[in-house]
Amino acid sequence: MKELIWHRQLLPALDRHATAPFLTDASTGVTTTYGEHGARVVKLANAMRTELGLARDERYAVLSLNSARFEELYHAGFLGGGVVNPLNLRFAPRELTHVLADSATRVVFVDAAFAPVIDAVRAAAGVTTVVLLGEGDVPHDVSYEALLAAGSGTVPEEPDEDDPAILMYTGGTTGLPKGVLLSQRSLMLTLYHIKMTVPLEEHDIYLAQVPMFHAASMGVIVGTPTTGGQMVTVPFFDPPAVLDAMEKYAATSTIMVPTMLAMTFAHPAYSPERMASLQKMTYGASPMPRPILDRLRSEQPQLLLYQGYGMTESAALVSVLLPEDHLREDKLASAGRAVAGTVVSIQDIAGNALPVGEVGEVCMRGGQFMSEYWRRPEETAEAFRGGWYHSGDAGYLDDEGFLYLVDRTKDMIVSGGENVYSTEVEQAVASHPAVAQVAVIGIPDDVWGEAVHAVVVLKPDADVSAEALIEHCRGLIASYKVPKSVEFRTEPLPLSGAMKVLKRELRAPYWEGRERSVN
Amino acid sequence: MKELIWHRQLLPALDRHATAPFLTDASTGVTTTYGEHGARVVKLANAMRTELGLARDERYAVLSLNSARFEELYHAGFLGGGVVNPLNLRFAPRELTHVLADSATRVVFVDAAFAPVIDAVRAAAGVTTVVLLGEGDVPHDVSYEALLAAGSGTVPEEPDEDDPAILMYTGGTTGLPKGVLLSQRSLMLTLYHIKMTVPLEEHDIYLAQVPMFHAASMGVIVGTPTTGGQMVTVPFFDPPAVLDAMEKYAATSTIMVPTMLAMTFAHPAYSPERMASLQKMTYGASPMPRPILDRLRSEQPQLLLYQGYGMTESAALVSVLLPEDHLREDKLASAGRAVAGTVVSIQDIAGNALPVGEVGEVCMRGGQFMSEYWRRPEETAEAFRGGWYHSGDAGYLDDEGFLYLVDRTKDMIVSGGENVYSTEVEQAVASHPAVAQVAVIGIPDDVWGEAVHAVVVLKPDADVSAEALIEHCRGLIASYKVPKSVEFRTEPLPLSGAMKVLKRELRAPYWEGRERSVN
Repeated sequence: MKELIWHRQLLPALDRHATAPFLTDASTGVTTTYGEHGARVVKLANAMRTELGLARDERYAVLSLNSARFEELYHAGFLGGGVVNPLNLRFAPRELTHVLADSATRVVFVDAAFAPVIDAVRAAAGVTTVVLLGEGDVPHDVSYEALLAAGSGTVPEEPDEDDPAILMYTGGTTGLPKGVLLSQRSLMLTLYHIKMTVPLEEHDIYLAQVPMFHAASMGVIVGTPTTGGQMVTVPFFDPPAVLDAMEKYAATSTIMVPTMLAMTFAHPAYSPERMASLQKMTYGASPMPRPILDRLRSEQPQLLLYQGYGMTESAALVSVLLPEDHLREDKLASAGRAVAGTVVSIQDIAGNALPVGEVGEVCMRGGQFMSEYWRRPEETAEAFRGGWYHSGDAGYLDDEGFLYLVDRTKDMIVSGGENVYSTEVEQAVASHPAVAQVAVIGIPDDVWGEAVHAVVVLKPDADVSAEALIEHCRGLIASYKVPKSVEFRTEPLPLSGAMKVLKRELRAPYWEGRERSVN
Repeated sequence: MKELIWHRQLLPALDRHATAPFLTDASTGVTTTYGEHGARVVKLANAMRTELGLARDERYAVLSLNSARFEELYHAGFLGGGVVNPLNLRFAPRELTHVLADSATRVVFVDAAFAPVIDAVRAAAGVTTVVLLGEGDVPHDVSYEALLAAGSGTVPEEPDEDDPAILMYTGGTTGLPKGVLLSQRSLMLTLYHIKMTVPLEEHDIYLAQVPMFHAASMGVIVGTPTTGGQMVTVPFFDPPAVLDAMEKYAATSTIMVPTMLAMTFAHPAYSPERMASLQKMTYGASPMPRPILDRLRSEQPQLLLYQGYGMTESAALVSVLLPEDHLREDKLASAGRAVAGTVVSIQDIAGNALPVGEVGEVCMRGGQFMSEYWRRPEETAEAFRGGWYHSGDAGYLDDEGFLYLVDRTKDMIVSGGENVYSTEVEQAVASHPAVAQVAVIGIPDDVWGEAVHAVVVLKPDADVSAEALIEHCRGLIASYKVPKSVEFRTEPLPLSGAMKVLKRELRAPYWEGRERSVN
């Protein structure tokens, strides 16, 4: 079928908003209109076929900071140029080689800064053509603007709604990344779900600071472009640049993950009035520490807050805690309720739905979910067993359908036969005023199986002993959850591309030569 | 696929809003909650299978005034009970027999008042089981409540999204009605389109006065039930009952067609403050005479107005004139712009897209469109030729994508080689203060081919001559469009189930024994 396709969304938006500003690149100050964007995207889509010889279902990769070109590369693919494979900027050369080879991607679009990395892996990865975004004296085969100029201006034939649109490799929190294949239909349904949940309006100016290679950017990729609103991109998250862009362009809407907020608040460039133009903020990806949320709400009282929960496999949004839900103290710790067309079910290992309040694996269904893990039929079947997508998150539902996430199932600590949810312990540790960052992991223990261990980064000039931190937790959580040991670090904790702490890396030295039941 | 199905919409709504009021029948004052509605619908769906022996893809008919039971009968079908065939209350026995036989419908659910009509046609129509809604000493086989009580409480297995959900026969403005088959997917996509266009909110109290057998009720059938909002039904449109219900239940939202508004304004029971609780009104189905619109806006200034355009084949909504568009004088005559996921194209007879401003047939595409005209592959192929649904409406687009309807193609008058759009002439005649109702048709003329003829009903106590009306028009429209003759009637003009004037009936006596090129 040909109805749930990007043609139906982008082309009417171009008609309606041809002369309206579409995207401003804050690093250059250049703004393109909807009309200009549309003309470039059509030419690019055609050039991919005629100049690069890409088949419509063939992958091309993008290794780029946030920019107008990145948006063009998404939309050109969706209009029939090919299947976009956005590369995580934190991928190590080994991961890049794996992703490019695994996806049989021959063509890579790359920023000058990353061209040497691609050049180093191209032979091993099987890359035949490197297209350079922008300028630079770096190894490449074709320049982006020359390629685009060669494309015809005829809108490409419509794809089918089940045709692939994005192959997005999931962040490397476990082993090598897997490709998540999203169809045109996935994108359109996630667009509908977003639009019915988080208002995207014509007057909105959306600041794209989350990396565009990440599924959390789906709102920028398919949401804002269909509304007539304007986008502003910053190349990457950097508090002073973000604050400058917010002020200069009077941004009204953005997505931030808690780590980004914490870093912004901690930066000398921050002052509350610099974010005063913001009307809506979506946050998510990891639990929001209460002090950060409280500070955000007290310093930006004008903000409508949306907490989103989702993953690459769901083309992002699964549940949302709405602004009105934020007024209910007992719901603040939840990830909200399922969005339109999406159902959440908490299941035990056998696939039985668990009653309200019981912790199990968070499972879900909805039209927006991926078609498959790229060429991994067994892992796809495993993820969708019983017809439900299994998230790997542990959580429970309350009697109003609010979802509470307690942990990644693999980050859960089993100590003396009790389940300890690392996130709960982290909230306790983080509530100590000296703590800047914390991750709680299970380490081997001959008596308890696993022992609760906290890895802590203190605030500058702050000081607290391990004993005092443990004592602090004792007043907040049950004794079996209290860390048995605390390790202090001065470097920030290692983060994934989605800015989640890489607990597997923290665990690794402790488990060397041993087997952990889940890892 | 199993994602775009009613299970995914109704069941979460029941979970969230179990104890909230769902539907109030204004004629009895009885209110059911979401939880009660859900329990009844599940039992009914199962009883259809176990007690009536209906197959999941088998049709059952409903001949009923607006009521909670009508809503139950829709939802039970959508959950797997069968395919609902809602019967137009204005169908003559000949049409009823045709619709029931054409659709091979064996089971009919009927109000006591209409049971004798069904009894009279049951043999010819092939009906085997009549289920009586409510009480009454009338011919029937089973009572609705007894049937429902026999059903199990287990949620039926999910259908596929391409499974049929509704078979709705289109109003008889040409020949015998045709069945329009709408899938689960159609309903879900139209729901998404409605929700993204006309806000349906949890605090809304929606008054259902449009007949529930009609596609214009799609908002009641699939929209409001998913929001947590409340519905109030009046059995049928009757100004005093509607005004009583608006006041008593403080209705915030409703749909009215222009004829209903005109009749309400003309009724002694009307006073502006009786509609003061309304916040949103959708109107459509036929052009809104400017005096009615002006009166509505001046007497109900609080109203957000949405003009909707659509047809049964599109599961209703195709384009909407939004409240902000109503502020633009030059857009007021338009039917707004296409809703999400829907594209409008104006085409000539050969299927070429026409440029901005040129009049042609209004064609459209979107995921919400019907699967087929029931068992009429040739008419289905004809309607969807070139991949576009052909509406039979003549219109044009402006450079901002606003759609202007000029006429039904078959109501267009060809006079001396010029196309005259009947609606334009009607607006001119209706602007005379003495005119209550007008329809303009083409009648045979030996010189001009067709002559423009106006059928007019005057306001009570008003008086105007044919000559004076013609003179009035001369100042407003080109001379070839001015009526050549005027006919006065004292009875209201004949209306279809959708309350559109049946011009075919008005034309018939003039064309007896003659052939009109389009009829």
